[in-house]
Amino acid sequence: MGFEWYTEFVDTGYKPKEGELICVFKVEPDGISIEEAAGRIASESSVGTWTTLAKLPDRIRGLMAKVFEIEGDTVRIAYPLELFEEGSIPQLLSSVAGNVFGMRAIKNLRLEDIIFPAEYCKYFPGPMLGIDGVRELFSIDDRPLTATVPKPKVGFDAEEYAEVAYQAWSGGIDFIKDDENLTSLSFVRFENRLNKVMEAREKAENETGEKKVYLANVTATGNEMLRRAKLVADYGNEYVMVDVLTAGFSAVQMLREECNLGIHAHRAMHAALTRNPKHGISMEVLIKISRLAGVDNFHVGTGVGKMEGSREEVKKYADLCRQRWYVKPVFPVSSGGLHPGLVPDIINLFGNDVIIQAGGGVHGHPDGTHAGARALRQAIDAVREELTLDEYARTHPELAKAIEKWGYSRPR
Amino acid sequence: MGFEWYTEFVDTGYKPKEGELICVFKVEPDGISIEEAAGRIASESSVGTWTTLAKLPDRIRGLMAKVFEIEGDTVRIAYPLELFEEGSIPQLLSSVAGNVFGMRAIKNLRLEDIIFPAEYCKYFPGPMLGIDGVRELFSIDDRPLTATVPKPKVGFDAEEYAEVAYQAWSGGIDFIKDDENLTSLSFVRFENRLNKVMEAREKAENETGEKKVYLANVTATGNEMLRRAKLVADYGNEYVMVDVLTAGFSAVQMLREECNLGIHAHRAMHAALTRNPKHGISMEVLIKISRLAGVDNFHVGTGVGKMEGSREEVKKYADLCRQRWYVKPVFPVSSGGLHPGLVPDIINLFGNDVIIQAGGGVHGHPDGTHAGARALRQAIDAVREELTLDEYARTHPELAKAIEKWGYSRPR
Repeated sequence: MGFEWYTEFVDTGYKPKEGELICVFKVEPDGISIEEAAGRIASESSVGTWTTLAKLPDRIRGLMAKVFEIEGDTVRIAYPLELFEEGSIPQLLSSVAGNVFGMRAIKNLRLEDIIFPAEYCKYFPGPMLGIDGVRELFSIDDRPLTATVPKPKVGFDAEEYAEVAYQAWSGGIDFIKDDENLTSLSFVRFENRLNKVMEAREKAENETGEKKVYLANVTATGNEMLRRAKLVADYGNEYVMVDVLTAGFSAVQMLREECNLGIHAHRAMHAALTRNPKHGISMEVLIKISRLAGVDNFHVGTGVGKMEGSREEVKKYADLCRQRWYVKPVFPVSSGGLHPGLVPDIINLFGNDVIIQAGGGVHGHPDGTHAGARALRQAIDAVREELTLDEYARTHPELAKAIEKWGYSRPR
Repeated sequence: MGFEWYTEFVDTGYKPKEGELICVFKVEPDGISIEEAAGRIASESSVGTWTTLAKLPDRIRGLMAKVFEIEGDTVRIAYPLELFEEGSIPQLLSSVAGNVFGMRAIKNLRLEDIIFPAEYCKYFPGPMLGIDGVRELFSIDDRPLTATVPKPKVGFDAEEYAEVAYQAWSGGIDFIKDDENLTSLSFVRFENRLNKVMEAREKAENETGEKKVYLANVTATGNEMLRRAKLVADYGNEYVMVDVLTAGFSAVQMLREECNLGIHAHRAMHAALTRNPKHGISMEVLIKISRLAGVDNFHVGTGVGKMEGSREEVKKYADLCRQRWYVKPVFPVSSGGLHPGLVPDIINLFGNDVIIQAGGGVHGHPDGTHAGARALRQAIDAVREELTLDEYARTHPELAKAIEKWGYSRPR
């Protein structure tokens, strides 16, 4: 298997055809030329190494992926659509994001982007609600939505948890979300929590006249996940939350196919794949495959708080969630260390089509969760009324105490 | 949220209790001390950041993870078992391998190991067959098992594929395995391929008097995966193959729970997580969680061929698959660029409890698949008879041609 063999997968004069799927890789070869490394990647991610490929019929040769562009360390590969099963994210990943990361031919490899043809996308349902559907569910079309996660992440029993949910909802929060590791634990079983939280929702909805939604974390083994999602629907709630990467796309797609529920995607574990700029899989790819799989909300970071990611990156991810595509647009969720004082900056960065999620920045308010929820909504109202938080805080004591505690960033 | 707060999660005098789960992280802090970074990791992976934690009841404080050892860049954290749902790999990953990788507090973070207490493991089924069960299925107790993947990875139609399977089986191969990206494609639908391969198996079993098994790749969306696994059982086959990482553990655990079939785990995409020594998740962790989830075979690499991984690493992974633990031992699969000339070295490295899988190294034999399969078995027989391949090749022409083509590594 000399070098020559791999040149069959490299044709920099090739123009990709309309229906082909294109992958963009950043490649750091290990002791070989980038052409050879690229050829080996194209081979391993399509028909595979084969010592007598030349003897194969044209039908099979037609399935070879082709490296059609090499610019610096960036390699573009075109894949015939016949290589992919219709509607299967796991099969896509096994092909173009599978063995390739482990090849000796490369030191580092990053799947930067996938450009999907319409023909590939048509087999995916995409989001059930999308941004318009979520706005319709709440009858809110003129402001960002808000979410909070009761903190600590785990520890409350069902009654305590529902009380925190009630405080937040009645203070003006739209979504209560379970945290990524809160599933069904010995001291707070799933159905018991769901039951109590639904009672709290009814009370909060009656008091406020606003729609409230619970993002119930159904992350579990596949059959148990479906059972819990059905419970959520039976209790009259409209949404579930799932850790898309730790559960895996096989289960996420099943959830989308089997249940008529909105899906909030938490991305726990993503940074194990996305954080190294030289190796792994980009957030862009994770967002696109999550859109195809059919989630309605997707975490993109904040550009500010406790999680990594620059403002520019986070904005780019949000735009990728929202941009017109083959499936409905998805609500980006800005989450991680947010508090009311950051709201003007967040709205300046994201615009109105964003879910602003604050945990500690709601519950850590000096006067508690209810006041924290009010402060968050007041911060949004301030922006809508084109007032600074300082100005608005003069007549809104909850906001005043929040910015006294956490400070206040003027929008950049 | 000053530094002091995080010290509540650090107690280097703490002795972990018997029932606690312990994680070993390699930590590269970003501009803060390793103590602070470790404390933040313990917080984010357990009860989470909370600005007034001090006010919480002891019951909730008892759920805080504790950094109990810091040695150089290695941090050990003890987690109370109440933090984890019984029998759920996704929930475990969301907790200890979730948000932590994306924290600003760290530049790099690698989950090196998880030490599981018996109490945690008892909720997992582990492998249905395990090494003993697989050997019993084949009635083979004295040699490594062999597997081959028809190559090219994709391209054959069902008849062509079944003919390659027949050639390999009749030449002496035990397992025929679908490759990671071969699921149900337009030119080779799953059930059609299964049907033809089962016919080929019957013929090969009748001719050889040996048991033959098909590792049918059921990687798909969750419900379709179950449907295909049921087809496999209906056709009388005993095993499926699944890409555990691209499908995800939610689906893998469902497969184990819902089907009475052996599970061959391909690890496509693992190197996106495992390859960077500073960031991500180790193979040791992936092997342990796969054992708990209940796979019977697991790919560990070769230490030689086309995939990364040193001999020492690969040996360590194989031993981890096979070692006595709370669930049955798993067959390590050595795969990636193998050919008959490497067999003595592989057996020297792994011993007999290994599945030797060769793709191009079988089908690329100068006289084709059947001869390549014979050569692979001959190489194993040579080792059993304590002869060198050179010696054995004198009376075994298939082996002679294989080592003429690919060469021959004497065991180190």
